[in-house]
Amino acid sequence: MVAIVDVGITKFGKRKESVIELAGEASKDLVRKYDFDFVIVSNSYSGEFNSISGINSLITTYLGIDEVPSVRVDNTSGSGGSALLLAKSLLESKEANTVLIIGVEKMSDKKTREVTKIISSLLPENERIASLPSLASLATINYMKKFGATRESIAEVAVKNHYNGSLNPYAHIQKAVSLQDVLSSPVISEPLRLYEYTPISDGAASIVMTRNEDALSYTSKPVYIKGIGYSNNTSFICDRDDFTTLDSVRRASRMAFKKAKIEKIDFAELHDMATILEIIQSEDIGLFPKGEGWKAVINGVTRLDGDIPLNPSGGLNSKGHPIGASGIAQALEAFWQIRNEAGNRQVKDARVGLSLSMAGFGNSATVTIYGDEP
Amino acid sequence: MVAIVDVGITKFGKRKESVIELAGEASKDLVRKYDFDFVIVSNSYSGEFNSISGINSLITTYLGIDEVPSVRVDNTSGSGGSALLLAKSLLESKEANTVLIIGVEKMSDKKTREVTKIISSLLPENERIASLPSLASLATINYMKKFGATRESIAEVAVKNHYNGSLNPYAHIQKAVSLQDVLSSPVISEPLRLYEYTPISDGAASIVMTRNEDALSYTSKPVYIKGIGYSNNTSFICDRDDFTTLDSVRRASRMAFKKAKIEKIDFAELHDMATILEIIQSEDIGLFPKGEGWKAVINGVTRLDGDIPLNPSGGLNSKGHPIGASGIAQALEAFWQIRNEAGNRQVKDARVGLSLSMAGFGNSATVTIYGDEP
Ligand SMILES: [Ca+2]
Repeated sequence: MVAIVDVGITKFGKRKESVIELAGEASKDLVRKYDFDFVIVSNSYSGEFNSISGINSLITTYLGIDEVPSVRVDNTSGSGGSALLLAKSLLESKEANTVLIIGVEKMSDKKTREVTKIISSLLPENERIASLPSLASLATINYMKKFGATRESIAEVAVKNHYNGSLNPYAHIQKAVSLQDVLSSPVISEPLRLYEYTPISDGAASIVMTRNEDALSYTSKPVYIKGIGYSNNTSFICDRDDFTTLDSVRRASRMAFKKAKIEKIDFAELHDMATILEIIQSEDIGLFPKGEGWKAVINGVTRLDGDIPLNPSGGLNSKGHPIGASGIAQALEAFWQIRNEAGNRQVKDARVGLSLSMAGFGNSATVTIYGDEP
Repeated sequence: MVAIVDVGITKFGKRKESVIELAGEASKDLVRKYDFDFVIVSNSYSGEFNSISGINSLITTYLGIDEVPSVRVDNTSGSGGSALLLAKSLLESKEANTVLIIGVEKMSDKKTREVTKIISSLLPENERIASLPSLASLATINYMKKFGATRESIAEVAVKNHYNGSLNPYAHIQKAVSLQDVLSSPVISEPLRLYEYTPISDGAASIVMTRNEDALSYTSKPVYIKGIGYSNNTSFICDRDDFTTLDSVRRASRMAFKKAKIEKIDFAELHDMATILEIIQSEDIGLFPKGEGWKAVINGVTRLDGDIPLNPSGGLNSKGHPIGASGIAQALEAFWQIRNEAGNRQVKDARVGLSLSMAGFGNSATVTIYGDEP
């Protein structure tokens, strides 16, 4: 098994630096401190957004570690989770001893309309009339109807996550909002509103991984990866018969819990590209029975001071979602929470955490469970 | 350790099918025969060339294996070698038991000028005045001057590889050419000519990998991966002081031979994006002393019936170079040669082979050694 022993991150948001410079900012201190024998770059759209290819080699050159082998791993919004899995495998197979994962995306080089169009290219051609924001709104309508959820309960996810983000110095949006603010923000795709979607962000996040037996020589407080689960679902999203559950998330989380040999977690970073997704995912990973997640939100169960805080970092909703960086930034949050280093947003007694890195509308899901012991 | 137990491929060349259909054509028989628990798609430019993202999930959906987790691995022209390494790690770490690697690229959707521009985007911005074809011509001039190589010796690589390609039913160009043909073909970058460069090709190649202990339950003749070596070099190609050697290739091959615990190979598939590269690489992997590779070509040592046949498949030079597919197609050739299934281009007593998958101008190199025993 493997552990995270150090991390680096940039502030997320609209950044003037290039994609390479952002990767460098999150990684340069780590490169100074450690000798890496493999670099994995988690990045999806450097060709489309930044007109470069071979980003992994351009980054190692920029960092002055020319000879270190590297690769780019892409699984669209779920790239970070896939990168964690592949780093774990490289370490366990002893093809590498110290792996640097750099998650990075520079999205603001393109206009919002272009970004949406490029990201929708993960849908099969005959389904591109749909977009991920509109699929989230469809899920919202179905969820409310099927389970009697109130409109407010869904918007409360944005209130909670913006509050958490206001406590995170690396978040894109560091401003708490009221329920009234959320429900009066512009409609993006009826009934969901602007504050309920992740903004378009630039940013990078880096982590250092080693095998467990080496971890204590890097830090006295390694954060151990206890298990990773992963599964896919059809890309024909419009063909699915139920938008209120994500089969890939269910399968991936079951696999992760089984591998980790645990049943209970203290917090989770979920893939809240839209508010409704946090609720659906919280049920699919088994925290609440199907159809009950919205009640947990309004009862405060998922708040920082609740029984099971969700997205203490602010989530994609307020931290932002630089595609290739998001899954790695989730691992950073788990690292900080479990080491009791999360500052004002520290979850009490955070010993075991979970992150969900998801592509498309659950086209792919990777669930990672982290803990303070192996 | 791991083994290749089955393969699939499309004809390389200008194809009318989409990138997804090509991936399907190379993989559909394999999907019918085996249950996969992970799919790695080796592909670099599906965003830039084909305007799609999430190609890995689109392919599993197309193949009707929706739930199988997948990822895209990109290392530009060296993607295939990186995919082999990551598949090996996934298997050895027991995160997967049966991995399907699909290498695919559809390049002919774009005009040659656009393709060249997109591929040059792997060079740092201030070096994009150079292109990979012009770097090869610079290497040719330096090599001839430094080692007294004749112009003909370099062109003879194209004669040999076109002959080999004429025996390969999957090659893009299946036509033998004379030395006169090569030297009278149009100049691309002085002194190198058209027939000395790889054409722009579409195509896909797929392989099935398992751990050694499972391999015999798939086939009576597994081809074992004996070792993989990998290294990088600076992306600032113009800064290098010697164009007649590729440091990443030297380091990667040393690592591969050491891991494989062997010294002698029976054939090699090299990354002959241009003729000169096969010669330089044949020296860098240790087959000939530096500066002697050109003599081996004119003495017939590297021909199909020579002591150490190079690029029996026809190489990139005549087989073509669909970027993400090339490294996987090399593994296929090794599979066929070692199983004595290479038809008219069979290398005599081919028991141990090597492939070199390279990105940029040696920005990255992965060397894989294959054998008929573990
Ligand atoms: Ca708790």
